[in-house]
Amino acid sequence: MSAIETVSEQRCFGGVQGFYSHDSEACGGPMRFALYLPPAAEQGPVPVLWYLAGLTCTAETFTIKAGAQRLAAELGLALAMPDTSPRDTGFPGATGDWEFGEGAGFYLDATEAPWNARFRMYSYVVDELPRLLAGRFPLDMGRQGITGHSMGGHGALTIALRNPGRFRSVSAFAPIVAPTRVPWGEKAFSRYLGDDRKAWERHDATALVRAGAGFEGTILIDQGEADGFLVSQLQPQRFEAACEDAGQPLDLRMRPGYDHSYYFIQTFVEDHLRHHAKALAA
Amino acid sequence: MSAIETVSEQRCFGGVQGFYSHDSEACGGPMRFALYLPPAAEQGPVPVLWYLAGLTCTAETFTIKAGAQRLAAELGLALAMPDTSPRDTGFPGATGDWEFGEGAGFYLDATEAPWNARFRMYSYVVDELPRLLAGRFPLDMGRQGITGHSMGGHGALTIALRNPGRFRSVSAFAPIVAPTRVPWGEKAFSRYLGDDRKAWERHDATALVRAGAGFEGTILIDQGEADGFLVSQLQPQRFEAACEDAGQPLDLRMRPGYDHSYYFIQTFVEDHLRHHAKALAA
Repeated sequence: MSAIETVSEQRCFGGVQGFYSHDSEACGGPMRFALYLPPAAEQGPVPVLWYLAGLTCTAETFTIKAGAQRLAAELGLALAMPDTSPRDTGFPGATGDWEFGEGAGFYLDATEAPWNARFRMYSYVVDELPRLLAGRFPLDMGRQGITGHSMGGHGALTIALRNPGRFRSVSAFAPIVAPTRVPWGEKAFSRYLGDDRKAWERHDATALVRAGAGFEGTILIDQGEADGFLVSQLQPQRFEAACEDAGQPLDLRMRPGYDHSYYFIQTFVEDHLRHHAKALAA
Repeated sequence: MSAIETVSEQRCFGGVQGFYSHDSEACGGPMRFALYLPPAAEQGPVPVLWYLAGLTCTAETFTIKAGAQRLAAELGLALAMPDTSPRDTGFPGATGDWEFGEGAGFYLDATEAPWNARFRMYSYVVDELPRLLAGRFPLDMGRQGITGHSMGGHGALTIALRNPGRFRSVSAFAPIVAPTRVPWGEKAFSRYLGDDRKAWERHDATALVRAGAGFEGTILIDQGEADGFLVSQLQPQRFEAACEDAGQPLDLRMRPGYDHSYYFIQTFVEDHLRHHAKALAA
């Protein structure tokens, strides 16, 4: 296991907002992540809420923009915030397009060259980073929840659905729920995973639910009705229909007037953190 | 009076986070500002809390990083957030140095050329922008408070002290309290105001209090003890001593472990907004 280097640690709501780097095996190079430890972590291990960010974001986006540390401090939750992809890969086409490559890892393991050498965010988030964090920080890995925004909402939903028993709670802000059916997903999956659309479905929350995957507990989703990506890329009604058909409990809240930004996220982050805290209580 | 152009308006905690631009007379060119209107503004005029940002910041910094809209919504306060200087001035030396020029207006009216043609943030914040806002938004200009961070804390303190009766409440996060005595202030004031150190003192909160200026009510200041600028640039003990000598009520809270960042500000922003809301209640 590689060593964790501390980039910075800053006091926030009585806890510690840290940024760290390490050499990732899954992603074949250095990776950064952020971790917020609440004051309760001084007394012993605390539950962990994973937050997966969206296109163009980094490990810093949620830490700066969401106002979540206040609640994490109050509720005694750690917040684990990975980056959205490997960086400085040097692969042709890995930069310059905000919908693909660096900043757009889509929380999958690429199978196509050259991406399969570095773009392995699924293994990174599901296997490597949890092991790394468990070995270094006072975290109770028996109590994990997961959430995310947009591409990161897609990550949270698919990872929770594919790893039954791992997470006690899952939620998402404006998630991509059916990437195999929308331009963002079609573009990224065709390059990362190749042309076999059957292989794409393991990374599509709606397809997973339709194929029999389920989550024990209610899935919470908030979605702004003034979100500019709602119709073209997000289409929550696809997931809603699949959950209804499968009997999967879903609390989908449509929010009039709200867009895709962190002004939307900061408005509803308290609902989400309280949802997770309830499930993660000892 | 120049027209206000809407750059963006986004729903946030039931209110509206807006960014606007206009041609400023005081600053001789286009200026941007941010304004958060709480849900209560739909029913009628609401009190205004001014927030003045620090070096390198823009009208967007506090809106993104402080988590203040939640409280402003709850307390029924508007948040008015100007930029920290004119932009794109083209003056030699106006960019490239984070401590001076664009992003570093120091909330004064420059008297030295070329700065005096554009760098007139005192007149802008004290006269032009309040008039402009009052004419366009549902604000109760009889109920104003002012706060700020670092250079903006300097701005809040000096503007409140120089305009008795204008503000019902004043507070600051890690303010520059004695700019005439520290490198940040000496560098900026010598260029904006010239060599006459006597003229500098109207822009120095500690000197103003020592010269007899006072604020009706307690001045609230939070200061992190792990702030890297505490000893070299901030020196709150200078202001504390002046207030003590003058009988000016001051609540200076030293916060162990906190630095100069918005992780510090977001931790204590609730205390400040409640302090202002109490004074601004009808």
